[in-house]
Parts: sequence; structure tokens; C-alpha cells
Amino acid sequence: MVRIHARIGLSYDVGPQGADFIFNLQAARTAQQSVVWEQLDIQPFVFSVESFDPATNNRMLRLTAPPGHLELDYRCTVDLRHHVELPHEVAEVPIAQLPPSVLPYLYPSRYCQSDCLGPLVMEQFGHLPRGYRRVQAVVDWVGKQVSFKSNTSNSATSALDTLRDRVGVCRDFAHLFIALCRALNIPARFATGIDYGADPALGPQDFHAYVEVYLGHRWYIFDPSGTAIPMGFIRIGTGRDAADVSFATIFGAFQSAAPLIEIRAEVGPVPGFELPVHRSWAISTAA
Amino acid sequence: MVRIHARIGLSYDVGPQGADFIFNLQAARTAQQSVVWEQLDIQPFVFSVESFDPATNNRMLRLTAPPGHLELDYRCTVDLRHHVELPHEVAEVPIAQLPPSVLPYLYPSRYCQSDCLGPLVMEQFGHLPRGYRRVQAVVDWVGKQVSFKSNTSNSATSALDTLRDRVGVCRDFAHLFIALCRALNIPARFATGIDYGADPALGPQDFHAYVEVYLGHRWYIFDPSGTAIPMGFIRIGTGRDAADVSFATIFGAFQSAAPLIEIRAEVGPVPGFELPVHRSWAISTAA
Amino acid sequence: MVRIHARIGLSYDVGPQGADFIFNLQAARTAQQSVVWEQLDIQPFVFSVESFDPATNNRMLRLTAPPGHLELDYRCTVDLRHHVELPHEVAEVPIAQLPPSVLPYLYPSRYCQSDCLGPLVMEQFGHLPRGYRRVQAVVDWVGKQVSFKSNTSNSATSALDTLRDRVGVCRDFAHLFIALCRALNIPARFATGIDYGADPALGPQDFHAYVEVYLGHRWYIFDPSGTAIPMGFIRIGTGRDAADVSFATIFGAFQSAAPLIEIRAEVGPVPGFELPVHRSWAISTAA
Amino acid sequence: MVRIHARIGLSYDVGPQGADFIFNLQAARTAQQSVVWEQLDIQPFVFSVESFDPATNNRMLRLTAPPGHLELDYRCTVDLRHHVELPHEVAEVPIAQLPPSVLPYLYPSRYCQSDCLGPLVMEQFGHLPRGYRRVQAVVDWVGKQVSFKSNTSNSATSALDTLRDRVGVCRDFAHLFIALCRALNIPARFATGIDYGADPALGPQDFHAYVEVYLGHRWYIFDPSGTAIPMGFIRIGTGRDAADVSFATIFGAFQSAAPLIEIRAEVGPVPGFELPVHRSWAISTAA
Repeated sequence: MVRIHARIGLSYDVGPQGADFIFNLQAARTAQQSVVWEQLDIQPFVFSVESFDPATNNRMLRLTAPPGHLELDYRCTVDLRHHVELPHEVAEVPIAQLPPSVLPYLYPSRYCQSDCLGPLVMEQFGHLPRGYRRVQAVVDWVGKQVSFKSNTSNSATSALDTLRDRVGVCRDFAHLFIALCRALNIPARFATGIDYGADPALGPQDFHAYVEVYLGHRWYIFDPSGTAIPMGFIRIGTGRDAADVSFATIFGAFQSAAPLIEIRAEVGPVPGFELPVHRSWAISTAA
Repeated sequence: MVRIHARIGLSYDVGPQGADFIFNLQAARTAQQSVVWEQLDIQPFVFSVESFDPATNNRMLRLTAPPGHLELDYRCTVDLRHHVELPHEVAEVPIAQLPPSVLPYLYPSRYCQSDCLGPLVMEQFGHLPRGYRRVQAVVDWVGKQVSFKSNTSNSATSALDTLRDRVGVCRDFAHLFIALCRALNIPARFATGIDYGADPALGPQDFHAYVEVYLGHRWYIFDPSGTAIPMGFIRIGTGRDAADVSFATIFGAFQSAAPLIEIRAEVGPVPGFELPVHRSWAISTAA
Repeated sequence: MVRIHARIGLSYDVGPQGADFIFNLQAARTAQQSVVWEQLDIQPFVFSVESFDPATNNRMLRLTAPPGHLELDYRCTVDLRHHVELPHEVAEVPIAQLPPSVLPYLYPSRYCQSDCLGPLVMEQFGHLPRGYRRVQAVVDWVGKQVSFKSNTSNSATSALDTLRDRVGVCRDFAHLFIALCRALNIPARFATGIDYGADPALGPQDFHAYVEVYLGHRWYIFDPSGTAIPMGFIRIGTGRDAADVSFATIFGAFQSAAPLIEIRAEVGPVPGFELPVHRSWAISTAA
Repeated sequence: MVRIHARIGLSYDVGPQGADFIFNLQAARTAQQSVVWEQLDIQPFVFSVESFDPATNNRMLRLTAPPGHLELDYRCTVDLRHHVELPHEVAEVPIAQLPPSVLPYLYPSRYCQSDCLGPLVMEQFGHLPRGYRRVQAVVDWVGKQVSFKSNTSNSATSALDTLRDRVGVCRDFAHLFIALCRALNIPARFATGIDYGADPALGPQDFHAYVEVYLGHRWYIFDPSGTAIPMGFIRIGTGRDAADVSFATIFGAFQSAAPLIEIRAEVGPVPGFELPVHRSWAISTAA
């Protein structure tokens, strides 16, 4: 069991017409991730409406901000109970056995043009035995092909761009890895979260993007940029790609500062809490 | 705008086989009710799983408790933005225009045997002009027929029992009122919550049961026992009757103490917060 | 594989104000029941709206009828691919492992007052080993206690009434059996359908009521009145009890004739189609 | 009221490993579109499973085909009751009032890269008064910029490609129009269907792609390629773009023939049925 404390601070200067905000930044509640404490402060006070998508468990927070300064301070304590399996025991699920709700994650999306990658994946991964370890081979390939470098991509960068440029940030690694999985007919989706254990050399703590792949009738976590510790991820949202789960979608003129993000893992005094560490297990937090 | 701080403390002694608990006690999140802070403490620590019913917005908390003492301490801060209308402007919705999701609240349920009350409601309310004020006439009638008296009913008491015995607590007033509304082909549902402004003469603060009636394409709040201030209700859950939204359903041997419940309304320093008061408006917190 | 052809004819004389109808009579579409052909004729022509409840797979047909004669003629061809298990291999599901969507079927409902039957079921069935065969013991007990006799019950008859009177029709057998299962903390739900193989001695072909019990992570079919062949049931709707899945709920004045129902099973020419027969297997058509 | 009879014939030669098929070709059931008759024949017989997405009303048909020839013959009779408004009375919906379920249709998708079109739409349409007629101006602009020409695009062609190449088929017109609407913060989605009144000069009857735009709290139909009569569209599916609602997604080796599609509108003998014609109204079949 892992207990994580996290804090997200966002700061905006809203233009003279005001602006509508759609945030996707609260910790998801799943059968493996329990939110035991959370607090949302909005300055100045505006009434916010939370809605919930039962298909994804995503939480959406909407508000209309008046002109001027807007600050959000979200804090939470989240307990994680990971489902783990031995990688070699996790099989791919035949197409005919995929639940209907999983099928959309087989199709191409804005940043994951899997429909263009069929020949590449057949050549690189078509001969490999099916299962978790084939997916591991794909994520390893992405890690070798692409270098992590800040400020090398932007919000329009897609998997095809990253495949060509061979450089990007966690979002770009995730998009390329997803596109390759889908081209192999393996469902994959984009996940956003807060990551414990991020390498400080990569800059200040930020939101993280990683991937969930549907194998063995569950969604297993992969971290294609390899920059953090999967056991310490708090899931915020999942979607087809970054278009679905932007942490803030803003309609109106604004200026913003970089988000301030803090994360801390708890050890004790409750017995049974452990620090997240790297494991060779297949890890899942969603059925 | 109303801001409420509430706290619910539950205490159990679980038998030697352990027990499974299903709680329905967290504040609902709706377009009019925003949970800005909440904390759940469980002693001893057990992992709890929250699930969410998109059809009702109900939150369900499940856990398996080991033998021995179990304590839950839930605290929350909730902002309410009431939708209000003038009662004479709120019409009944013709059957053909009721959304599919509303229809189950027309049918009889365990404690609301509306199928047996057709002749009674036709005689008492059939001649009244349709609309919010007809429903007001029904709730007034219930208030005149039934006396509030603690410990006069139990978990098997139904609307028909209350109609005969003319005595009960908030749950019984709610069941009878719901059954009468449904017999008039007006959708009505059972709501549980924490009530600000409860008359201290009725005993220590407890959970409250009230009713939402579907009128004018929204669910409007009625308080048939008349013991509290509707503007100060935090909604926990809604269902067909008490069978759906028990605050705790327990599978296994246990002993329990009375719940400890606190509620407080905030005034300021944020401008715009007001104390809940009695109003003659039609009040709704759910579309 | 079983292929069934069925036809339902309904006939009404609607009063001078017209009437609103909510029908629940079309064959459900599930992973085991495929509707390959269907036709709905309404005379005189009125536009009908079908809606669908994703939580149950129930189909609801709504229309507003003008004064005068109304006829519905629904015909369908349905393929069934049963899931079968050996009864002794089908276990009860521990409470903590029940999916959230199954929990409502543990609670008492209008006609299934399971909350009053705890002592009875403990005495009769508490000592039996858990699993499909305990449920089989309950259904056998119901069959011994209650006699099938037409016109002995009405729309207000509940499980407690049937337990006292020891007589009823398929609906009453189903309600009592459901109430007993729930009192044992085993989820059970009411199913309506058309039944192939009904004993002609019981009168003209009619709608059938039977039960689905949640065991081994699926819903298994039981036929407590024992009057038909479960492999030949076309499922129409499921609910907590008859209040949820009345084949017609009518708002307004009307007179009606008995429904005309035909059912026929197909053998060939497609290889693999078989006639429904009695089997000792545990049979399921819903996960 | 419009009654349409349609037929879709699909024919495949499946490779020696067999293949999994996901079809999206059955007529949707909505509050304005009622399927009164339908038949699905599959040769050779294989059990097919239909599933239903409550978020979109899409119907999905899945089957696993053995090697060899596979034929699908789907026929249906569908009644349409259009919701119509005068165009100048249909307003854009402010972002803050959009229902949560509509928001995904604001975001870019595989073939509709609205995130790249902000400057273009501001220049072309930013000055226009908001409402249905602004959207009409966008669809007119697309019609002027792009020429309809068969076999000029393929399954990878996106809105940006079409904007550059100025040529395409109905799918391409739809993708470009959707991308422009979303860039204006107006929700728009891709619809597939069968179109009555298609110009025979464009080739044999085929599936049609058109667009629904969210205005005035409903989805209004637009036909950006201008090749058919919107009052005569039977809706099959809706999605973010063509990636979501391909009429057939096939996993495995196969060869296929062009689909055979027939469509016919009924006049009488039922009074009130009319032939679809071009109207200047705003037309909607979905709330």
C-alpha cells in the first residue's frame, strides 16, 4: 500500500471578458486508488461544478472566472493498492474478447495516428510472441529511439512528429507508444497524473503523462519516458490522447504561470505503507 | 450561496468473523452542490473503495473490516447554489415528457406502496389544480395527518403502516409523501442528508430524510416532517426509498453506537455566503 | 444454439382523453441473446420512442395514444447462445467482490420484502453449503410450499402474501424466491420474458416471470414456478421486481384484452440449432 | 413524418485465419428516429453480438467470421420525426452552459485538427454574429473552397489535408467543417448514415457522412458536401470523426466488394408521411 500527498497550484490572469475553465486535475477514484482527503481552494471565490465521466472515472471541474487574478490550490491524500502480476503471465486479449468500452482505444486519435504505423509495427514487433513482454519490447524501442528534452515539442506535436524528430517530453513518448500499441491491435490510452520519484534533473516537478495498456483484462501502467516510478503515480485522468485530458482547457484570454506541484509519499505510522520503488512487476490500478 | 461544514462519526464493534460495510454517507457532487473539502478517516486503517452511480450521483464507500473496533470520521465543506423558482410558476411535467431516467420514481417501491393509494389521492387531491402547489397540498396533508415522535417506527415501517398509525420520524413522513405523489403520477424520490437547523427538541443531530419531487423539469426539495431548513440540506444520496440509500449496510455481526453528527453554516469572510433560512420559494439542487 | 420466433399482440380501447403508454415488451439484446429480426406494428400509426437502459439492457417503448382502439403487434426472431456450467462448480460471490451494479439486487423492494425473512432463511438454508446448490434448495423449497393456481393473486400481491397464502402464479413464485435469496445476501432479480415449452394445461400462452440469481460472477436463470423450459426463455426485461418491468404501464383510462402470445423454436435448416430441453446445467444469458 | 426503407449489403472474402468484425451499420434509435422493422441476415450463420453505447446511441455489431465468404444483409424501416426551428432563432450555447457530455466534441480529433485552425476561423468567421447562421456561413465556405470528387482522398486524409488539397468526398467535407466549428468553440460531431436523395451523378448509392452541430441545446444536422437531402438521412452512428464510426472495422485478412445500398422513402397509405425535400429550416434529430 502506498499513500501519496500531493498539491497542485495554478495561477492565471484572466482577461477583461472573463474566461471559462474546464480543469481535469483532481485525483481519480478507482477500485485501486482511494482519495481519503482533498481540498480545493479557489481565489477569488467562484462556484465550481464538478462532473464525473463514468466511462473513464475522470473528474472535470468547471468554473467561470471574472477578469483579474485566479488561483487554484488543490491538495489531496491518496491511497494506492496496486494490482500486480508477473509480466510473463499477462496475455494480450483477443479482439473478440475485448469489452465494448475498450474498443475506442484501438482507434487512431488526434495525436496517435496508429492507422499510419501498420507496416512499421509489423516489421519491428510482428514476429514477437504476444503478451506483456511484446508491449515491453515496444516501450523499450520507444525509449531507445526518442530522447527526452524539454521544450522540444508543443501542443500540436503528434506521434508521427515524434517518430520523425526523435525527441520530446513525457507526453510525446506516451503518444508514440500508444500509436504503436494500437497499430498492433492492442488497446492503449493516455493517462495524466502526478509522479512520485521524478528525476529532479529534468526540471521542476510537473504533471506527468504515461500510458495504460489493456492486457489480461486489465489496464497496465507503462511509463514510456522512464522518468518516474510507476508505483508512485496518482492517476488524474485517462483519454485517447492529450486532447481528452488537458489539465486546463480555457475559453477566453488569459496569461498563466507554470503549475506548482508537490508530491510526497508517506511511510507510517500506519503499518503497511511503503515507499514507491521500481519493480519488475506488471502493475495495474484499473480493471 | 450557502456554505456548510459537516462531520459524521460512526462507531462499530465488529464480530469475530469481520464484516463487509457499504456506506452511503459522503456528500453528493451535483451542479448545485460542490464539495470543496472532505476528509475520511478510518480507524484502524483499511483500504476503502469509493464507487459512484452516474444515474443518481450517489457515492458508495465499501470496505471489509477486521474483527474489533471500527471508527469512521467523515468531514466535509460543501457549497450550495440553490436553484429557486416561484411556486406558482412550477408545473407538473406531462407523463409523455418525463425523461426515461425519471420513470422509475413513478413506480411503487419497498416502503412506498403507491399502487395501493390511487383512490385516496383521487379523493383528496384529484380535484386540485396541477403544479407545485398541488404537491404542497399533499405535503401539508401529510404534516397534518402524521405526528413526529421518535422511536415509533422501525426499519420495516412502510408508507401504508404510517398512514394507519399516524406517527413516525422523518423517514416515515418521507415514505408516505412519496407514495402519495407517485399515486398522483408525479415522480418522487427519497433523499438522505444532513440538515442544518434541526429542532434540538427532537433529540441529538441525526441523519435526515427528505424528498425530491420532479416538477418543472427539475427535482424540487420538500421536507415532509418539517423539522429542518431545506436551504441547509446537504444531500448525501437519493433513491426510490430508504432501501436504496441506507447510510450503512452491514454484512456480518456487529454492534454500533448512535452516529455523531455536527453541522455548521458559514457566514463570511467570503462575501455572498448567507445563513440558511426558511423561504417560500420552490428550491432545487438537481436537474 | 437456440432460435426462437415470438409474437406478442396487445389490444386496448383508450378512453376519450387518450393515454400515455410505457411498454416493456421487446426482446433484450445481450451478449447471449441476439435479436436478428423484429417488427413493431402500431395501429393506428403513432410515433413511438424507444429508449434503452444501459444498466439493465431493458428496452422501453413510449407512445401517446389517441382515444379509440390501439393495437400493437410485435414480432421477433431471437438467437440464444447459453452460457452453461456444472451446478456444483458455481459458487456464491462474497459481498466484498460484488460489482457495484449488482448491489441494488440485495436490497428489499416493493414485492420482495427480504428484510423480513432473515430468521426464516437462517433456519431453513443457513446450514447448507454455499453455492448454486444452496440456491437450488431454496427454489425447490418454494416449489414445495407454493401451489400454482391461476387468478389467485393480483398486482398488489407480495412475497409475504405468497408465503402466507401458499398459492400464486409465476410472478408470485418469483417474488418469494427473490426475497429468500436476498435475505441470504445473494443478489436476485426479477426477469420477464416469453417462455417456450409452457404447459398448455396452465392456460393460453402468456408472459412469463422468472428469476436471475448472481452466482459465479454471472446471472443464472431459475424458474421457480417450474412451468417452462429455461433454455427457451427470451428475456424481455429485468428489474428488482414486477414494479420495474411491467409489460405495459398505462396513464389514462383504457380497457384491454388478454395479450396474444405465440412462440416457436426453430430447428434447421441452419446446422447447430437445437430445440430447448430441460437440462441439469446452470444456465446463464447475462454476465 | 418521414418513413424510410433501407438496405445495406456487405460482402467479404475472409482469409484463412478468419477475422473479427466490428460493424457500425444499424440504424440508431433516438427520440426522433424510431426503428419499426429491421432484419439482419448473416451468411454463413455466425452468432453476432450487438452492443450499445448509451453516450452516443451507437449500435455496434461484433462477430468472428470463419475463413471463406461472408455476407451481411441488413434491412430496416425507420420513422423520422424531425425537430425543426427557424435558423435565426437558434443560438450558440455559451461554454459554461454546455452539458458535460458535449465537451469532447470541442476537442481536436484524429481527422479534425481544430487546434491548428484558430487564426483561420478568427479571420474568416470571428466577426460574424453568433448563432446558427454563423455556422451556416462556415458550411457555405467549405462548400466553396472544396470540390466534390470521388477517389481523391483515402482513409488517412484529414481536415488539414483537405484544406490544402481543396478536393474530397463527403467524409472530407465533414472533417473540415467539424474542425472549423470546433476552432470556433462550437461543438461538432461526425455522423454516418444512409442518405435519401443522393445525386446519382456522384456514383452508386453509398454510405453518407454528415455533421451534427450543437446549437440551441440540440444537435442540428448540416450536410457540408451538399449532396443529399438532410430530411432523408437515417442516422447510423455519431463520433468525433470517422475513426469512431467506421461502418466496418476488420481484424484479419480479407477482401471486400463495394457495399450495396438501397434507400426508399414511403408516401402513404398512412396519412402524414411526406417525402424528404430540401428545407431552409434548422433540422435536428437529437437532443
